[in-house]
Amino acid sequence: LFLLAFLFSTVLAGCIPENGTTRKVSGNPLPSWNSGPAKTSIVEFVEAATEPSGPSYIAVDRRIAVFDNDGTLWAEKPIYFQAAFAFDRVRALASDHPEWRQEQPFQAVLEGDREYLGRMHIPEVLALLGGTHTGLVQEEFDTIVAGWFEEARHPRYDRLYKEVVYQPMLELLDYLRANDFKTFIVTGGGVDFVRQYAAEVYGIPQDQVIGSSPKFEFEEREGASVVVRKAELGSFNDKETKPANIELHIGQRPVVVVGNSDGDLAMLTYAADRDGPSLSILVHHDDQAREYDYDKGTEKALVVAGQRDWTVVSIAGDWNRVFPFN
Amino acid sequence: LFLLAFLFSTVLAGCIPENGTTRKVSGNPLPSWNSGPAKTSIVEFVEAATEPSGPSYIAVDRRIAVFDNDGTLWAEKPIYFQAAFAFDRVRALASDHPEWRQEQPFQAVLEGDREYLGRMHIPEVLALLGGTHTGLVQEEFDTIVAGWFEEARHPRYDRLYKEVVYQPMLELLDYLRANDFKTFIVTGGGVDFVRQYAAEVYGIPQDQVIGSSPKFEFEEREGASVVVRKAELGSFNDKETKPANIELHIGQRPVVVVGNSDGDLAMLTYAADRDGPSLSILVHHDDQAREYDYDKGTEKALVVAGQRDWTVVSIAGDWNRVFPFN
Repeated sequence: LFLLAFLFSTVLAGCIPENGTTRKVSGNPLPSWNSGPAKTSIVEFVEAATEPSGPSYIAVDRRIAVFDNDGTLWAEKPIYFQAAFAFDRVRALASDHPEWRQEQPFQAVLEGDREYLGRMHIPEVLALLGGTHTGLVQEEFDTIVAGWFEEARHPRYDRLYKEVVYQPMLELLDYLRANDFKTFIVTGGGVDFVRQYAAEVYGIPQDQVIGSSPKFEFEEREGASVVVRKAELGSFNDKETKPANIELHIGQRPVVVVGNSDGDLAMLTYAADRDGPSLSILVHHDDQAREYDYDKGTEKALVVAGQRDWTVVSIAGDWNRVFPFN
Repeated sequence: LFLLAFLFSTVLAGCIPENGTTRKVSGNPLPSWNSGPAKTSIVEFVEAATEPSGPSYIAVDRRIAVFDNDGTLWAEKPIYFQAAFAFDRVRALASDHPEWRQEQPFQAVLEGDREYLGRMHIPEVLALLGGTHTGLVQEEFDTIVAGWFEEARHPRYDRLYKEVVYQPMLELLDYLRANDFKTFIVTGGGVDFVRQYAAEVYGIPQDQVIGSSPKFEFEEREGASVVVRKAELGSFNDKETKPANIELHIGQRPVVVVGNSDGDLAMLTYAADRDGPSLSILVHHDDQAREYDYDKGTEKALVVAGQRDWTVVSIAGDWNRVFPFN
């Protein structure tokens, strides 16, 4: 009877998220994080935010946590994973497009022109995707992406791309959700690309992924209605556009923002300027042995993080495990 | 012991939403709905969608239900409630704008020109809001709207506008959520207007509200970052734009769509053309005694609903109670 009553109260405590009480992961919630200032700042923030009688308590409906994706939840080297997808698509469709042999950026992809491709950034990749997938019905595109995720492998780790995600971040997502934070992705990558694996890998449903997007258009095709991806870019979700799209999609200022580059600086700042407690976390890639080591594209964010005393995560120092397959 | 075991299993069954088993509201889940074809079609759809071994089973992560707002979740007569808000704002700000006495549509509002105002549709109302609230920081606008919802009253029912919501729809929202449907609002109204009461009244969190929106812009003001509402319209979320914005925000075709006008026809069709079971519901306003009686703006949708055998809800016939205060 005692055991049953105990189980009963445990189950009750574990399944009512909106009652304002804390529901912390028992034991060590962040096993892949070494003890140190980064882990301490996270745990102290979450414990204060969920203590109803404390001065830093945050109501459940305000517990919004947003994560960048490339370089924050999964790796972004040697190239953005979505660029790898786009290149694979160009190769797959090349036989139907002989003109691509003399047309950039298709020619560079087909010839493996590393110098040209190395200069491309996400907007060019999105344009490449637009060029190869214009006019596709949304569900057709989704199926192509889902198929790619089951096959394409990262060149260094020889793992599916969706396995090259950071184990400490999976734990952080779980830890936040266990404490009634609602978790979102706010990425410069294509929204419908990231949505194809976010639920399975991160536990983040499709509607909680905000990203770059083409214009969408409702059409009738062969007697049935579809939504079609147009060539035109709808939103490039980077830098100052990130907090603007957070208002459009979420409607309130996040309290936790996790990023890794200058493209995340605006939304990191947006959380930090909140009227109340917040946590801005910047991932620093400094581990060539296990992952990659680069500051390029993060110079400004590192300076501001130092000035404002944000939580800077050193992959080399703060993570005892980088990927789930380690 | 038996009682405890029973309670335990009941609690367990009730709090694990992703296990694929049904979790129906016990007893009569839709007490304000009369027995009849509309109620039957809803209950049969939900029971089939949640029966794992049945041919019409819908996986939990596909259970997306979207609701129009004006005329579907709350009333829209004698004028759109957001228009009442906009008119109140014009009057509140008029002393700072003497030029409005000779400038339309402000003049019509200040003079109570019913004929002029009767011709206005949501885009003009949104423009009016843009004119009165351009450059406002998002949180400032939210505070103004929230204050209005605590004071402004519907002229016919003498209730707060947020009380003039349909009791049968509140029950339908609960019933769907109890069966693991995720509920969204997809409205032509302003997204940041509807967000200010949707959680409290409908149980729908801010990020699950999709609506018309201004352009948002990230700025620094007095040393702190803010997101500002610009005068320019970002999206007018009506007709064919509704399914397009569903793809942008939700990323998949809904299985349940509830609407009441030609503005909802595209998204009602989008669900109905899904590859698999779906439920398209059209509310018909035919009850002048308790609510309003009008077909204007719903002519096309009523024809298509008849042709395609959608669920048409007669307020007079299908609802034994219209508002929570009845």
